[in-house]
Amino acid sequence: MDRRSFIKQVGVTGAAAAAATAVSAPTVWAQGKTFQWKMVTTWPPEMPILQTGCVKFAKRVEELSQGRLKIQVYAGGELVPPLGTFDAVSQGTVECGSGASYYWAGKAPAAQWFSAVPFGFNPQGINAWFYSGGALKLWEEVYAPFNVIPRPQGNTGVQMGGWFNKKIESLDDYKGLKMRIPGLGGKVIAKAGGTVVLLAGGEIYTSLERGVIDATEWVGPLHDLRMGFYQAAKYYYYPGWHEPGTCLEVMFNKKAYESLPKDLQAILDAVAMETNLWSLCEFEAQNGQALETLVKEHKVQLVRFPDSVLEGFRKLSAEVLEEEAGKDPMSRKVHDAFKAFKAKLGPWGAVSEKAYYDYLAQA
Amino acid sequence: MDRRSFIKQVGVTGAAAAAATAVSAPTVWAQGKTFQWKMVTTWPPEMPILQTGCVKFAKRVEELSQGRLKIQVYAGGELVPPLGTFDAVSQGTVECGSGASYYWAGKAPAAQWFSAVPFGFNPQGINAWFYSGGALKLWEEVYAPFNVIPRPQGNTGVQMGGWFNKKIESLDDYKGLKMRIPGLGGKVIAKAGGTVVLLAGGEIYTSLERGVIDATEWVGPLHDLRMGFYQAAKYYYYPGWHEPGTCLEVMFNKKAYESLPKDLQAILDAVAMETNLWSLCEFEAQNGQALETLVKEHKVQLVRFPDSVLEGFRKLSAEVLEEEAGKDPMSRKVHDAFKAFKAKLGPWGAVSEKAYYDYLAQA
Repeated sequence: MDRRSFIKQVGVTGAAAAAATAVSAPTVWAQGKTFQWKMVTTWPPEMPILQTGCVKFAKRVEELSQGRLKIQVYAGGELVPPLGTFDAVSQGTVECGSGASYYWAGKAPAAQWFSAVPFGFNPQGINAWFYSGGALKLWEEVYAPFNVIPRPQGNTGVQMGGWFNKKIESLDDYKGLKMRIPGLGGKVIAKAGGTVVLLAGGEIYTSLERGVIDATEWVGPLHDLRMGFYQAAKYYYYPGWHEPGTCLEVMFNKKAYESLPKDLQAILDAVAMETNLWSLCEFEAQNGQALETLVKEHKVQLVRFPDSVLEGFRKLSAEVLEEEAGKDPMSRKVHDAFKAFKAKLGPWGAVSEKAYYDYLAQA
Repeated sequence: MDRRSFIKQVGVTGAAAAAATAVSAPTVWAQGKTFQWKMVTTWPPEMPILQTGCVKFAKRVEELSQGRLKIQVYAGGELVPPLGTFDAVSQGTVECGSGASYYWAGKAPAAQWFSAVPFGFNPQGINAWFYSGGALKLWEEVYAPFNVIPRPQGNTGVQMGGWFNKKIESLDDYKGLKMRIPGLGGKVIAKAGGTVVLLAGGEIYTSLERGVIDATEWVGPLHDLRMGFYQAAKYYYYPGWHEPGTCLEVMFNKKAYESLPKDLQAILDAVAMETNLWSLCEFEAQNGQALETLVKEHKVQLVRFPDSVLEGFRKLSAEVLEEEAGKDPMSRKVHDAFKAFKAKLGPWGAVSEKAYYDYLAQA
């Protein structure tokens, strides 16, 4: 900026500020206007990374905006029920919320592709799809009829496959198996002959302990350790083929977002992306020690799914995705875009990350 | 915020603004003060992701700050020589710069650990180390004597191993091999009996074509394709064990950074982290197609390093790291922290990312 436009800008802003002071109405002074927002989440209070990440998000937005945008965060159930988050944001009861898009499959089936797809993208893949592959625009299109604007806000990393009270030797072992597993992964388990049980977080441990269910998945070592599943099931399976890099979201009410000055909109977007990366880093930094505690202290048996089981699930997953994509035009559009981007990535992951991991594992 | 503190804050800001208007001196009014900065980089003009990422960084900072912080970006050589970047930032000739910390090993040997370590962290690992493992504080400590404040600003992902005009069957094939490879990787090649040649980017292709060197590494498919190496060497090796997730940096002159209001400091930090994630996404999204072009169109032979070669390099890398760590107390401190965090991650990568990649590769 040269000196003339510098003075011009300061002059204009100064005049607007003076006007605001004169009438004592902060709304007149755009730059100084402050906003007080509410965020509701689907997460339990104090849930590491997921809920604490939302609190961090709000704190950073306040810092970057010099206090012009303050967000009060409410955990699931504190203001609205956890699964009432989307509606609350959509209706403008609150200005923003946090969850995972597969929770809203009942409203918008195409939403499922933006959280976790069985045998889909890992964290690098799904982030590349969002930020460099057009998926964020598609996701906005899916939420637009609800006046909701989504942004990726977190990623769990590759999850664990789940807790089982018996060994899994083949796909046949899923016949009649009662498992708590939501979303597209649940549809795959049902196709394999399993009985999918829907349970809220607080009910899972007791159900597993009492034999109401035979198996459950949750997140990964850090969160699973806190849930105490190791006391009720012995076998801890990997990898989490059903959720290989689950994206967590922040959602904004469209009217609230658009009523903000452009700089505050940009601040929300940047902090969402910052929180997204931070979240994956926290999972990466903390899961290793939790896994060690589970294996060494609680004598959990860490087992890799047999190839035949993974191969079976891969085929069933492809069927489930095609079926879901066939249910409405938007899902078809999103699924096609998903497949096209997967094809675009090609073998790069095998040549880079996989080839490097292979070698480290041997070392 | 309740109504009373809201009015109080607006009142204070309004009064300060009015005072500023009265004296016509923008410096009095902290909120409206604007800053015009210069950024110099080590990258050639238009270099994809690395240089374009710096331009994007500046644009986003301007958006988030509502134009209060404008950064004019100069590519390598436009204002100062590429490798004069660190000094320019250190001396306050410019307010900020972009490079990779291993370029400054001559000034601060410990800096090398924050860009790329042979057989070190991949992108998820190094980011976790920075943001959730204390490495950013350590890095600040290493740059502090130079009045420079570093932030991660990009990541190349796992790089490629390099271009060779003969096949590599064993570590013996490196004896007498002339290779362009900088940093710690170069020290490993030298230990294996190779001759390490230092060449600026613009000299590599001709040197390879004329046989002045037998091999070179650069970045990955996207950048290597642009350099035309496929016309001068036939074999393209992977994985890039020497740079498994190279971190790119933005550096701020300490006095310039500290002279900013806290919100602008927070904006710089957030946009650096945003650009860091964006950068990895761009590499992820674009490398696959470039690799396909190299293999299908230019008939490049894509070859994995033999296990014996990787095993040999792993041992030599450990020796090189210990030698480097022994050279000064700060390097020792950083190397110890590096090893401790690697141990903390434990087998988590093998159970999550690797196990998932394994299966996808079979599919």
